[in-house]
Amino acid sequence: MPHYNGAAMDGIAVRAEDTLGASEGQPVHLELGTPETARRPFSYVDTGNALPAWANAVVMIERVFAGRGTDAEGHVLPEPVPPSDKQATDPAGEPIVHLRAAARAWQHVRLVGEDVTASEPILPRGHRIQPHDIGALLAAGVGELSVKLRPLVAILPTGDELIEPGEILRPGRIVEFNSRMIAAFVREWGGEPLRLPPVGDDLEALRSRLGSAIAQADVVCVIAGSSAGEHDFTAEAIASVGTILAHGIDVMPGKPAIVAAIDHQRRANRATPRARVVLGIPGYPVSAVVICRELLEPLLARLLGTGMRDRPTVRAVVPRRLFSRLGQEEFIRVALGKVGDRLIVSPLARGAGVITTMVRADGFVRVPPPVERIDEGEEVEVELLRPLADVLGTIVLTGSHDLTLGILEDVLRASRPQYKLATSSVGSHAGLLALGRGEAHAAASHLLDAASGTYNLPDVERLLAGVPLVVVNLVVREQGLIVAPGNPLGLADVGDLTRPEVRCVNHQSGAGTRVLLDHLLEKRGIDPTLIGGDEREEFTHTAVAAAVKGGLADVAMGVKSAAAALGLDFVPIEREDYDLVLRGDFAESAAGRDLLAVIRSPAFREAVERLPGYDTSHTGEIKLVVTSSGS
Amino acid sequence: MPHYNGAAMDGIAVRAEDTLGASEGQPVHLELGTPETARRPFSYVDTGNALPAWANAVVMIERVFAGRGTDAEGHVLPEPVPPSDKQATDPAGEPIVHLRAAARAWQHVRLVGEDVTASEPILPRGHRIQPHDIGALLAAGVGELSVKLRPLVAILPTGDELIEPGEILRPGRIVEFNSRMIAAFVREWGGEPLRLPPVGDDLEALRSRLGSAIAQADVVCVIAGSSAGEHDFTAEAIASVGTILAHGIDVMPGKPAIVAAIDHQRRANRATPRARVVLGIPGYPVSAVVICRELLEPLLARLLGTGMRDRPTVRAVVPRRLFSRLGQEEFIRVALGKVGDRLIVSPLARGAGVITTMVRADGFVRVPPPVERIDEGEEVEVELLRPLADVLGTIVLTGSHDLTLGILEDVLRASRPQYKLATSSVGSHAGLLALGRGEAHAAASHLLDAASGTYNLPDVERLLAGVPLVVVNLVVREQGLIVAPGNPLGLADVGDLTRPEVRCVNHQSGAGTRVLLDHLLEKRGIDPTLIGGDEREEFTHTAVAAAVKGGLADVAMGVKSAAAALGLDFVPIEREDYDLVLRGDFAESAAGRDLLAVIRSPAFREAVERLPGYDTSHTGEIKLVVTSSGS
Repeated sequence: MPHYNGAAMDGIAVRAEDTLGASEGQPVHLELGTPETARRPFSYVDTGNALPAWANAVVMIERVFAGRGTDAEGHVLPEPVPPSDKQATDPAGEPIVHLRAAARAWQHVRLVGEDVTASEPILPRGHRIQPHDIGALLAAGVGELSVKLRPLVAILPTGDELIEPGEILRPGRIVEFNSRMIAAFVREWGGEPLRLPPVGDDLEALRSRLGSAIAQADVVCVIAGSSAGEHDFTAEAIASVGTILAHGIDVMPGKPAIVAAIDHQRRANRATPRARVVLGIPGYPVSAVVICRELLEPLLARLLGTGMRDRPTVRAVVPRRLFSRLGQEEFIRVALGKVGDRLIVSPLARGAGVITTMVRADGFVRVPPPVERIDEGEEVEVELLRPLADVLGTIVLTGSHDLTLGILEDVLRASRPQYKLATSSVGSHAGLLALGRGEAHAAASHLLDAASGTYNLPDVERLLAGVPLVVVNLVVREQGLIVAPGNPLGLADVGDLTRPEVRCVNHQSGAGTRVLLDHLLEKRGIDPTLIGGDEREEFTHTAVAAAVKGGLADVAMGVKSAAAALGLDFVPIEREDYDLVLRGDFAESAAGRDLLAVIRSPAFREAVERLPGYDTSHTGEIKLVVTSSGS
Repeated sequence: MPHYNGAAMDGIAVRAEDTLGASEGQPVHLELGTPETARRPFSYVDTGNALPAWANAVVMIERVFAGRGTDAEGHVLPEPVPPSDKQATDPAGEPIVHLRAAARAWQHVRLVGEDVTASEPILPRGHRIQPHDIGALLAAGVGELSVKLRPLVAILPTGDELIEPGEILRPGRIVEFNSRMIAAFVREWGGEPLRLPPVGDDLEALRSRLGSAIAQADVVCVIAGSSAGEHDFTAEAIASVGTILAHGIDVMPGKPAIVAAIDHQRRANRATPRARVVLGIPGYPVSAVVICRELLEPLLARLLGTGMRDRPTVRAVVPRRLFSRLGQEEFIRVALGKVGDRLIVSPLARGAGVITTMVRADGFVRVPPPVERIDEGEEVEVELLRPLADVLGTIVLTGSHDLTLGILEDVLRASRPQYKLATSSVGSHAGLLALGRGEAHAAASHLLDAASGTYNLPDVERLLAGVPLVVVNLVVREQGLIVAPGNPLGLADVGDLTRPEVRCVNHQSGAGTRVLLDHLLEKRGIDPTLIGGDEREEFTHTAVAAAVKGGLADVAMGVKSAAAALGLDFVPIEREDYDLVLRGDFAESAAGRDLLAVIRSPAFREAVERLPGYDTSHTGEIKLVVTSSGS
């Protein structure tokens, strides 16, 4: 490759020896033709054309001049005539040209084998074929090649509680999703997944299904049943077919993982199993993700004979002290956001069962076993789970929760997909404090000031004195009592919450709704501590509505839209301003301006108005601007 | 999600109010049953089981004790009886148990909606679905969802010279591989490629094919024909259907790219075309790669509404000054290798047509337009084209070229796929100097010392005085004259190379073969400058053999295996030692020990012996060890 000597320039093909001695004062003339028809032949060539067999050099067209370059008396013409554009590269062009400089042999010629020669390897063994490798192979005439089979990974879910997607979700049943998730990972990592039907909690059945999986696949992943519990047969079943190398790994989440080797030597007298490795993958989905990434991905890379994909990392600041358990490597899911100059880490819930935290996570912070805490302001390395560009487009919104924030993100991304809204529901008060500490771009707030009867501005001025910011109204919304359909207890006002038979679920202290409720009770002269219930506190309106829906409580204070979303009834009590407080630098940034534009767009207002309990007549109104110089 | 209140621990379900007042001194006993059958009922539950409707708390099994916990007189037993392992979680187990501590309501219960509640978005709009997102969707009962269509990218190759893979490769013809390469990129970047048959160099045909491509696809890529040459109609054709936003971009390679917008407004009265963007992609494959990565990938990310994938980068040292053209952003392909403590950059050939350099490249160094040179020892950022793990497994081998190096890599990767051999053929002398500068792990050398008649050791001691190293023999090989089949000129010895009609192609100065040839001529009293030919110098044995094969030369000095690989004849002249010189620290590293083990393996020897002209009887012999303390 190339397979022929070709022109590397547009111009003429010549014999270098014919051009010897050419100079400004002594042009050499050449005739269109071949050695058979001309003493000094030339031929027009374009880049990539094959060189005629008789030629050994190319002169670029800019150095080729029309005619003989001499007058009738043989005197050199002072101004050489350049070839006309149209005729220059056209074989029907000038039949006689002249050169004013000699050509070196093989100049501007792409020689046979210059790129690759027979016997030289194009790709090494065990190379992952990339798009440009396809180009190199085809260019070299290779249309077929032997490739490694993708490792076949059998995935065997276990557990009596599993049902298939679409089956009826009875209490205690769980949709079998781990095998689908692991299959998608296997595909992403270059393997071929083989999802097997689930097997119940039965040692003999598991043993037999495991045996046939080992016969079929290169790697077998058994999901769940690897804890030390009563119905956990996975370890016992694996031990009957191979050697357990590890059962229990000091990672969190992911501890109950199992790694086992199938000893082919020892089993040589039976039918040879195909698999060499069996992994026991914990059933909690986040544990499964961690174990797949830490064990299955490197194993597949090894079986493929390729390196692991790089895991991009980024350094980010932990704004508040973070604790980790000693003696285990902990993988803390975190959201990230660039606030001001700092990339800020927001740790997410740590439960191994909360798969939605994986959806929200931008990355993992790995805390090594001997580290017990990460201090406020410390920088950590974050293993990214999505492109950094996505992270940098994240708008971090903290404070109070409302269903319209989901709508805001949806409308925002419809026209500006580069942004993502990362919301954390910590309550209005905590949200304003986080904004002041530079942990968020914006905070949602609906704090009633009892003295003035106004919302948010008094608290913003008190808690964020001197901080440049912009306060904008998002919606005016209805707060009230969320009750079971038909309002069976006949609740009509906040005073009814103190009735002894009424179980109430409340928002956490510092939440705007809690402030509102306490204010309303106070106005009616009622002691808030008389409210009955479990002392459970929730952080979102959907969570309190879910508690009513699930029968854990009879009533909760909350917004109408949350009641409607879960098919509950609603007793309206109060209308309140739900505002966004934006950091000043964010409000002036492109992202901040885009967010404000979307808040003011008809698309957002129309989408909000499709939900009950919202008034958008003040949506987008700027209520306060504080600049760095004052207000 | 969860859709039911479930046990978060193995244990018993209870009513918290039944356990009030339980303490070490005053155990509370519970009966297996329901409120209908027992005054204080309990029921055994495993993690994940649904909580009975009457229960509101779970007590973990370790805190549950068998029996009433009192003796016949009602005195508290000092040692509570733990439930037997087998019965503990078995509903047929202990019918009476006791607790020595009260339970809080809803303790160890995973509540309805704790993870996600109806009305809360699981995934935002425009989210790229990752494996764990599949888990979250299925867990929440979502089995189907609307997704964005992959953008359809039409790829239209142009040029009279194109043939399909498998067609006969006549001179001047080129296999149409760019469209296949671009299609693979499109697939990798989330698009759907539509490869169209090539169109010849004909403006009208191109215009019509472009029109139908625009009607079909979201993006149209026209390959080649975008230079300013005679047969370059791409820009004219694109201008007839849209608005050219850019023709010519200051990048190298990639300059002749075209970006055009299809104006849907302006064309509203005709049939609406589907595409909004047409790209003109240069025909030189490396230019095509650069333009695809810089324009097509971000465009697809934009159309998909997702962020760009991150491009991992790494900082590396430029060991020798590197020049770049002012005024253009240059993308220099580089190989990388970690030598000692430094990650070292080795620039590869810059020709835009040499697609094999993309195969060999570990990354791009982007040199911005105002930068003219990068100085020796400067650190640069390298955009990685393969995982960093692969790069760190690279063994950098410089110096002399031989076909057995390809075999060495092949045998090495068969058992140790984590390594890659990056060879650069600079000649023996230059290779030893590069080793001394810390630019390579090893150098291949076959330098004859005329005085002593020995190979390599005198030069190593002279050029690398005091450098810790190990010299090991790779092969003993036959050097001789590579000639056309049948040896038409009847060449028998190096003396014949000075015959006036003989055209010879030589190795570059400093190459071991050049040193050998000069030495042989000198011994025979012949002036080396009398050798005829084009003064072309080549760097590899396959290159000199290719020159003979292609008829550019009649003879070249080279190894027998290169002659055999290209079906040429060979006149043996000399046997020589072809050794590897390893840096001392590399020889002691895992990679160095692995390399030495492979050199000594029967697999390597057997593979070498399948080629003609090699003797492996000294392969793997250590000829010299220099340690840091001396020798």
